[in-house]
Amino acid sequence: MGEFELIRRFFTRATPKAVLGVGDDCAILQPGPGMQMAISTDMLVEGRHFFPDVDPRSLGHKALAVNLSDLAACGARPLAFTLALALPRVDEAWLQAFSEGLMALADAHGCELIGGDTTRGPLTICITVFGEMPATQALLRSGAQPGDDIYVSGTLGDASLALAALQGRVTLPPEWLAFARPRLERPTPRIALGLALRGVASAAADVSDGLLGDLGHILDRSGVGASMETNDATYLIAAYAYSTRAGGHFDTYVSAQLARQCVLAGGDDYELVFTAAPAQRAAVQAASNASATPVTRIGQIEAAPGLRLLDGQGNVLAHSFASFDHFAA
Amino acid sequence: MGEFELIRRFFTRATPKAVLGVGDDCAILQPGPGMQMAISTDMLVEGRHFFPDVDPRSLGHKALAVNLSDLAACGARPLAFTLALALPRVDEAWLQAFSEGLMALADAHGCELIGGDTTRGPLTICITVFGEMPATQALLRSGAQPGDDIYVSGTLGDASLALAALQGRVTLPPEWLAFARPRLERPTPRIALGLALRGVASAAADVSDGLLGDLGHILDRSGVGASMETNDATYLIAAYAYSTRAGGHFDTYVSAQLARQCVLAGGDDYELVFTAAPAQRAAVQAASNASATPVTRIGQIEAAPGLRLLDGQGNVLAHSFASFDHFAA
Repeated sequence: MGEFELIRRFFTRATPKAVLGVGDDCAILQPGPGMQMAISTDMLVEGRHFFPDVDPRSLGHKALAVNLSDLAACGARPLAFTLALALPRVDEAWLQAFSEGLMALADAHGCELIGGDTTRGPLTICITVFGEMPATQALLRSGAQPGDDIYVSGTLGDASLALAALQGRVTLPPEWLAFARPRLERPTPRIALGLALRGVASAAADVSDGLLGDLGHILDRSGVGASMETNDATYLIAAYAYSTRAGGHFDTYVSAQLARQCVLAGGDDYELVFTAAPAQRAAVQAASNASATPVTRIGQIEAAPGLRLLDGQGNVLAHSFASFDHFAA
Repeated sequence: MGEFELIRRFFTRATPKAVLGVGDDCAILQPGPGMQMAISTDMLVEGRHFFPDVDPRSLGHKALAVNLSDLAACGARPLAFTLALALPRVDEAWLQAFSEGLMALADAHGCELIGGDTTRGPLTICITVFGEMPATQALLRSGAQPGDDIYVSGTLGDASLALAALQGRVTLPPEWLAFARPRLERPTPRIALGLALRGVASAAADVSDGLLGDLGHILDRSGVGASMETNDATYLIAAYAYSTRAGGHFDTYVSAQLARQCVLAGGDDYELVFTAAPAQRAAVQAASNASATPVTRIGQIEAAPGLRLLDGQGNVLAHSFASFDHFAA
């Protein structure tokens, strides 16, 4: 199968939103009147971002999900994406499953595949995604104000807990791993919440490298600090609630230290961390309800720079949680 | 050096055209009123698109040039690009040279780096480029009409001749190779010509996979055929004119068959192949002059499907030139 046949067979769909989709030198998009275009790019490399034996359907899902998550963090509505794919060989069954996982998520968000590139090479997936939002309504990292509440959507830490289990760094009961693993392999981009938070949140980022790191980006860009109570952050792990409901003892398998590491610095969560003025608490709850996405208030923005983790009595904890860095030593 | 320091040091510039550049979850662009956005993505993989020992400055240039060439083929004016980069290690001298080559070409075209991704992995460069043009003025592959002239810009075949020499498939005098090699390593995107051809050309594509293949895309998308005189296409190779001026004998080194293969199917030329009605000949010449880009009329569009290569007497030649396909057996 040649390059053009491969594109035709697995990656060509109707693109009613685009002026022009796959098949010319460029694709053409036209944002609606008064709309701005949000753009984000993520590259996934085999052995770095996913295991060589990962289910291709999950991989297709995740490759787009991590990009959609960036649109969610900006309050943008997905429009389209491009896909550049380096493949070591043409494996039709693999491509079929990969494209099904990819396109199912794309279709769910009305996000059209408008172009791309395919080549031979070590398995690498590079997606650039396009969304739109009314001019000046983007949720930026730079808008947090002292006094704002800090929230996180959904649950945190399950993805990195699953990764730790798959890498043999922790042993989990199989049914717990089965519960946590989809959070690693098939994350849910919080598009609906991002849209509902337009005009409500003062700042937002997605949690890809770990909560502390990504909240840190908001603090840096906003020129503020924050405090968070983290003495018992374990409740943010979905697997904890799951295991507790099932009558299990979470801390038999997962140390408090690992649980906190997963929640605060684990990464791969693709939840939103965002801030909003206290006057917006009802509006935040309404956004949560409208998007069917749970949110939890986890801290406060403060004028003093730095991020202070507090124990249950309001004392500052020493901490050294590194967020993920692809080039850290 | 960490990921954020790497981005700050080598890949962060002012982005006055963008609403928002590097540093948030998404970059934000807003096309001008009545403008559409042209988008193209190309991925370059070490060992496939470039030699491991390629000069990083040239590589930075080429990685952006091949994308700008797609904008040129649409008649789009460059606005911005994203860069996703997988690196096996952080080599500061390499990154410095790569970013200089990349940014020099970007600056020459007012094309702003607005976002991207960096990760560890086999050396891979994925660029997505954004341009704009007035609505409905894009040069598409689909507009060629029977009777239109076919043109190609600049010269063809030097890039693939240089590649053949570097791979030891042909021996060239060193000064000829020195002349041809920059065409392989530092191609010139024909942006100015593309802009000048708005409203003049009926269809256009860039020559990346070889003239016959890329002209073939125009024919397919336009539902037409073409004839071209190709008995002596050697004159389209710049190195031929160079060697002749220097008193050399081109055919001592390069067989007529190889010369034709390079011109017709060589690829990596990044010239434009385009069509225009005969009534536009003066306008095409004016566009050529205005953009300081030579163009050569090489054939005619015909209603009958297929591409007919003619000898000097108008007889159809048998041919089997494969254009480049990354997955062909």
